[in-house]
Amino acid sequence: MKEIKVGLLGFGTVGSGLAEVLLQQAERLRRKTGASIRLCRVADIRLEALPPQFKDVELVRDADLIFKDPEIDIVVELIGGIEPAKTFLLRAIEHGKHVVTANKALISQHGMEIFEAATRKNVEVGFEASVGGGIPVIKALKEGLVANKILSIMGIMNGTANYILNKMTDEGMAFAEVLKEAQAKGYAEADPTYDVEGIDTAHKLVILMTMAYGMRVSLADVSIEGISQIEPIDIDFAREFGYRIKLLAISRNHGDTVEARVHPTMVPEKDMLANIGGAYNGIQFTGDMVEDILLYGQGAGKMPTGSAVAADVVDIARNILCNSVNRVPCLSYLPEEIKSRGITPMESLRCCYYFRMTAMDKPGVLSAIAGILAHHRISIESVIQKARHKKGTVPIVMMTYEAEEASVRKALAEIDALDICTDKTVKIRIMKAHAE
Amino acid sequence: MKEIKVGLLGFGTVGSGLAEVLLQQAERLRRKTGASIRLCRVADIRLEALPPQFKDVELVRDADLIFKDPEIDIVVELIGGIEPAKTFLLRAIEHGKHVVTANKALISQHGMEIFEAATRKNVEVGFEASVGGGIPVIKALKEGLVANKILSIMGIMNGTANYILNKMTDEGMAFAEVLKEAQAKGYAEADPTYDVEGIDTAHKLVILMTMAYGMRVSLADVSIEGISQIEPIDIDFAREFGYRIKLLAISRNHGDTVEARVHPTMVPEKDMLANIGGAYNGIQFTGDMVEDILLYGQGAGKMPTGSAVAADVVDIARNILCNSVNRVPCLSYLPEEIKSRGITPMESLRCCYYFRMTAMDKPGVLSAIAGILAHHRISIESVIQKARHKKGTVPIVMMTYEAEEASVRKALAEIDALDICTDKTVKIRIMKAHAE
Repeated sequence: MKEIKVGLLGFGTVGSGLAEVLLQQAERLRRKTGASIRLCRVADIRLEALPPQFKDVELVRDADLIFKDPEIDIVVELIGGIEPAKTFLLRAIEHGKHVVTANKALISQHGMEIFEAATRKNVEVGFEASVGGGIPVIKALKEGLVANKILSIMGIMNGTANYILNKMTDEGMAFAEVLKEAQAKGYAEADPTYDVEGIDTAHKLVILMTMAYGMRVSLADVSIEGISQIEPIDIDFAREFGYRIKLLAISRNHGDTVEARVHPTMVPEKDMLANIGGAYNGIQFTGDMVEDILLYGQGAGKMPTGSAVAADVVDIARNILCNSVNRVPCLSYLPEEIKSRGITPMESLRCCYYFRMTAMDKPGVLSAIAGILAHHRISIESVIQKARHKKGTVPIVMMTYEAEEASVRKALAEIDALDICTDKTVKIRIMKAHAE
Repeated sequence: MKEIKVGLLGFGTVGSGLAEVLLQQAERLRRKTGASIRLCRVADIRLEALPPQFKDVELVRDADLIFKDPEIDIVVELIGGIEPAKTFLLRAIEHGKHVVTANKALISQHGMEIFEAATRKNVEVGFEASVGGGIPVIKALKEGLVANKILSIMGIMNGTANYILNKMTDEGMAFAEVLKEAQAKGYAEADPTYDVEGIDTAHKLVILMTMAYGMRVSLADVSIEGISQIEPIDIDFAREFGYRIKLLAISRNHGDTVEARVHPTMVPEKDMLANIGGAYNGIQFTGDMVEDILLYGQGAGKMPTGSAVAADVVDIARNILCNSVNRVPCLSYLPEEIKSRGITPMESLRCCYYFRMTAMDKPGVLSAIAGILAHHRISIESVIQKARHKKGTVPIVMMTYEAEEASVRKALAEIDALDICTDKTVKIRIMKAHAE
């Protein structure tokens, strides 16, 4: 029987997950591919020994023992972070190895360098696990939706942020409180910045946009806002208006330019994205032929991510067995077809907005605020002014009709400069409900 | 530039959709595959001419002109129904053509014969569009989830039935009334039996089970109940208990045997499946590694289905270009690994149940019913008895704890035989809520 040999860099959570998957599913994969797909060597500098079930797997400290082994077909990088992961991936490619990674930070920031190196050596780069954990989102985009112009990408791509927002929504807890609890339970990192400030989500959006549109995108192209400023009161008002607040990655394709943004968004409560619970991810593509497709599942975790990494390994194994390497271009479009394209300036975005002003409880306040909005041609769809809030201030909450981001920014700057406004206005963009 | 030539059988709704997709996406597909994928001939006996945009496509009446053309690589069957579709597919295979079809009735009932013929001739069979319309559900199952034991399949796989149930739920309309409206709008067929009685859903479940478990399944293995008996009153009670009624295909993998059933189901309102609106489909797989994955999108329609058929055409085109035909076995497992396996008898199913009895409004009624249930060891979780219903009868509604189908059937037969019960008891199975 033919054998495909896999070398693994990094035996942390996801690395040991992949090892488990390949071990537990070995017989199933043989029944599907006719070959043995075997993890034969692991490089990890922190380990003394592998767990006993991996007695046939060799543990080494020097990653070169993987790159330079002519028997190894596929090198899987599950170290995470930029270095030494990047150097290792490039070295593996230089040695003619196919590579698989779950490293979204690396792929979103240094993907082009890696893909170009792989093209030169005619090896494959698998990165299914870099977006949406166990969900086969990249395969769906590259293959299932191959015959579509992608009109938009919209999704919940960070489980930690979604978990925190859901907990705030369901239990009325404050952001800091939920974060603390999530950290205690191991759902959030000690430094949660990447997750809660939208950076991790932006990494994933960059990867999806590259493939969806066949373009070069960099992290700097993405307008990013996180969820740390969201307060329970905003979640309550959202509920009152029939919305839930979600951290969304959004990219709409305008032809000449494409949007690239990550921010808290009010999602209509009937929308599938509003109903993504817990730490799950949900990623929606709209294609010109297929209309809306949503893929939902575990966006992280040892075994789900291991499942996605293993799917890449099997995909490449099949290409090795059939001699059909790079049968599907790794960025969906052929390398020479990847173009540069403009990013829609955030200022020209048009959408509906939620504003929460905090103002003195005095006559004339609403009139002053409404006057500034009118001056900037921002039409108010509805307004709620509730009873006194704290120390003589009241929250004034508004939902607008579609307005331009540039006008909104100017208007809010003027409003926040009013003496009667005591806090900075909270602004949350609203996702339109689908026409039924 | 290399060219892949496609012949099409049937230029109805989906056939013309595929033609549109291949025409509109030709340049995009060239940028992704490096080849021209071209529809060159259509066979349809009902047409005088193709629409003007297909001036480069030849229309013929004799399908043999497609099978026998040595230039044609891939034959797409979009006639529907069993004959002549089956004869045509087999003839195309005999002539060494790769075939693609959206025909779930054919694949679910005669798939093995077609797959065996294809194996003998070493050609491919694509059938992505046979389940879930535009949603890449078969690719996800065969490739994305390759490294998983599939523990269960659960889904809304018929858009018409889902549309009718949603309309009944949202507007309180009766089944017959909604059906009539759906037929007038073209959402339901003149003969809606396949859609509303669960047969179409069962076809799709058979196809998914075959691939998920690597087993032979036939339509007769599936226990099927449709939605035509559902009344608005059941939908209202479901809502009161926190559920929505959906027509689900369900298969759980018990190892030795697997379940195969299609029936109306009460789905917890927070579950993603409860929130599949309109005529959309939602298909959920649970894998031992990946946990839950849900795929959502348009389950039918000209362009969405055309998108899925085109994805199969491109997949096969890539294999022709790379000389890697049958790189992925068409049933996920290698042909020699497809086994026979038992189907769990419906009588041994254990789940929670909703019952609605219609009884005379007399003392002792509840006690008689409760006595029979207790005798069959069926425990009641909650009961609602409302005010008088019609002509002196009252509906008695119960939710049970987990019980065995065989006991439930015996108990209900006894209850329905009571003089005090005027109508047959309505029984709806309940899907358990996920633990958070």
